[in-house]
Amino acid sequence: MKSATEELEAKGKAAKMASHRLAYLSTDVKNKALRNIADDLLTKKAEILAANQIDYREGETSGMNAAMLDRLMLDSGRLEAIAQDVLAVAALPDTVGEIFDMRTLANGLQVSKKRVPLGVIGTIYESRPNVTIDISILCLKSGNAIILRGGKEAIHSNSALARVVQEACTRAGVPEGAVQFIESTDRALVNHMLKMNDIIDLIIPRGGAGLIKSVTENATMAVVSGGIGVCHTYVDKSADVNKAVAIAFNAKVQRPTVCNALDTLLVHTDIAERCLPMVATEWAQAGVEMHCDEQALSILKPYPSLKLVPAVDEDWCRECLSLVAAVKVVESLDEALAHIERYGSGHSEAIITEEYQAATRFLNEVDAACVYANASTRFTDGGQFGLGAEVGISTQKLHARGPLGLKELTTYKWIIFGSGQVRA
Amino acid sequence: MKSATEELEAKGKAAKMASHRLAYLSTDVKNKALRNIADDLLTKKAEILAANQIDYREGETSGMNAAMLDRLMLDSGRLEAIAQDVLAVAALPDTVGEIFDMRTLANGLQVSKKRVPLGVIGTIYESRPNVTIDISILCLKSGNAIILRGGKEAIHSNSALARVVQEACTRAGVPEGAVQFIESTDRALVNHMLKMNDIIDLIIPRGGAGLIKSVTENATMAVVSGGIGVCHTYVDKSADVNKAVAIAFNAKVQRPTVCNALDTLLVHTDIAERCLPMVATEWAQAGVEMHCDEQALSILKPYPSLKLVPAVDEDWCRECLSLVAAVKVVESLDEALAHIERYGSGHSEAIITEEYQAATRFLNEVDAACVYANASTRFTDGGQFGLGAEVGISTQKLHARGPLGLKELTTYKWIIFGSGQVRA
Repeated sequence: MKSATEELEAKGKAAKMASHRLAYLSTDVKNKALRNIADDLLTKKAEILAANQIDYREGETSGMNAAMLDRLMLDSGRLEAIAQDVLAVAALPDTVGEIFDMRTLANGLQVSKKRVPLGVIGTIYESRPNVTIDISILCLKSGNAIILRGGKEAIHSNSALARVVQEACTRAGVPEGAVQFIESTDRALVNHMLKMNDIIDLIIPRGGAGLIKSVTENATMAVVSGGIGVCHTYVDKSADVNKAVAIAFNAKVQRPTVCNALDTLLVHTDIAERCLPMVATEWAQAGVEMHCDEQALSILKPYPSLKLVPAVDEDWCRECLSLVAAVKVVESLDEALAHIERYGSGHSEAIITEEYQAATRFLNEVDAACVYANASTRFTDGGQFGLGAEVGISTQKLHARGPLGLKELTTYKWIIFGSGQVRA
Repeated sequence: MKSATEELEAKGKAAKMASHRLAYLSTDVKNKALRNIADDLLTKKAEILAANQIDYREGETSGMNAAMLDRLMLDSGRLEAIAQDVLAVAALPDTVGEIFDMRTLANGLQVSKKRVPLGVIGTIYESRPNVTIDISILCLKSGNAIILRGGKEAIHSNSALARVVQEACTRAGVPEGAVQFIESTDRALVNHMLKMNDIIDLIIPRGGAGLIKSVTENATMAVVSGGIGVCHTYVDKSADVNKAVAIAFNAKVQRPTVCNALDTLLVHTDIAERCLPMVATEWAQAGVEMHCDEQALSILKPYPSLKLVPAVDEDWCRECLSLVAAVKVVESLDEALAHIERYGSGHSEAIITEEYQAATRFLNEVDAACVYANASTRFTDGGQFGLGAEVGISTQKLHARGPLGLKELTTYKWIIFGSGQVRA
């Protein structure tokens, strides 16, 4: 009998082999596979939900918290939403094969770049079973083979979903082996997978900070990571207070558990007395707990029904992912910029200002994937930015920054058409 | 007294600080700095050449070989050529600040990408002192701060050249600290530098395979590496033999010591008897030693004055960097493709063919930075491809592939102009 490691190696080789044909598979076949997946998610609903029920019950038994159980849970509505997403990706243009930067050199050589898939993409993810579909369809559409390694909490759901993807692909004529799913939940396999740099061209970790850190540190191949957002909104002295209140509310409250939500509110001292109580009152109604520096605390103390906590150092570098926000009063735009440089994670940062010069400086000087003037950081999202779908949000500087769409799952090669040219 | 490590840390911090202002320094100031460097290379020629003489004499004394001594050596002619290169980079357009992919979303948000420098670039290089100028000007022009760590063989030359760059920058108004040079040649400093991922955004190793491997394995930040070329030219059965001979000669002989030179010639069995002797005869006149598989050997044996050696396994995976070539007869295009997939380093690969279908398959299926039909692989070069200058040749898939120009030393950030938008 094969060991789990040997099986992983064999799956890797099969994926690599498939990747060569996937690289120039027609858009029609790829889209057909995606439409098949969307269909099968609905026709095989009973089977998928039954598998999900096993995971869910095991989660309950093992004392999984409500948030995790919610992440794990699938139902008819969620499956239909996932199927819609799959159709949306099928409808996106295919970037593979795009020829760009073409030029004819003086010697007659025709030089161009051609967009090609990366090859084999590995993904290591945690408890959300929808990632199985999500990553599979984005990789397929961009012509990459995929090795899926999901968390053990969702193993039955992931396995059922991977089977749906594989069968749908086979029916559409996608090369056998293009989608590999690792059934074993042995943790040692992850370490082995991270050493397979002769097979896997890119690893995408999807999950919490711990997973991302461990993958980034141990992978021997390229990793596209990110998703850790310590996001600031700075209310400048010239801000329109109504915009500031609406944006701060939206950035913190609309969906507090995601990476582009507000973590720290910085407020210029000249506007703090007017603005902070308004923001805080709205936040308090939504249940936001505020970890305030001394000055913010002294401004907010007189107001009733606020959840105020004196801030400690750790508050400034924390990704909250909950209805908690750090609040600090700053003396100047410079202090805000310095604070963001020191504590920001390079994800999404916003200024609220009516002053041209302040907006310009902020947009120029803040070194982050996404910098906003007068808008909520919640917009940092592939769908919102018009990429159609996203693999994640990169906080790296190389290759791609911010929302990662289909194009970011590709590379290019230089294609040179000659007629016998030699170099002088 | 500061330790060398403390000094490195201090230089890193100074570079980081400078990088913030460099990021939006005007093109005029950057070009002025470059023109100053070009001037000073000539006006300070005596000083530079004197420093180079010290290195050269130490090299001779320590028994450095002729090739290394040649790489180390500077003279008036070489300095003038370097100064010309600097002016050429000054004349290139500035890619920093370019706004692209701009769109207005339905909610009125204006979303775009803005090209920005990476930040701080570290380079670790060996005995060529011209790299000091080369990398400095490319980093400066692309708005990056730079930390230079050259080899000890060229320490006096590098130090003199770095001083030229620093003084020229200061005179032009480039922020102090933008160009850092590490005087100490202590090897432990390299390891420390590779851990400074809070300071250095990208490391570029320039040198032999050993240096590149060690930097790639030990760096904790992004590395752009490559330059290792095991390059194939495949002569298809339908090839125009004259083109094949001219291209094989050029690819192997025109400059054998570089990464884009031919390492292995693959010849289709149907054309081998006709083509191989012609290639081999021309090669032999240039002094090329041929490491041949059995079939090539039996074809070439009857011809006089050829330097023939039976090929061993290592010949297929070796970057020759000299007048040596491996030669193999293959049964089919498929065998050629499989050989290249197995042994190629993803650098530059060529097919010589008059058949449309063979060219198409080769260009599609070979997974390398640069794939050629009917041209010499020697064209893989930033200058030749019209990038104006190059930092190196990437054999990675992520970020950039093939010749790396100024644009490849940048990243982008998303800039979002709002008027109070919040996410629904």
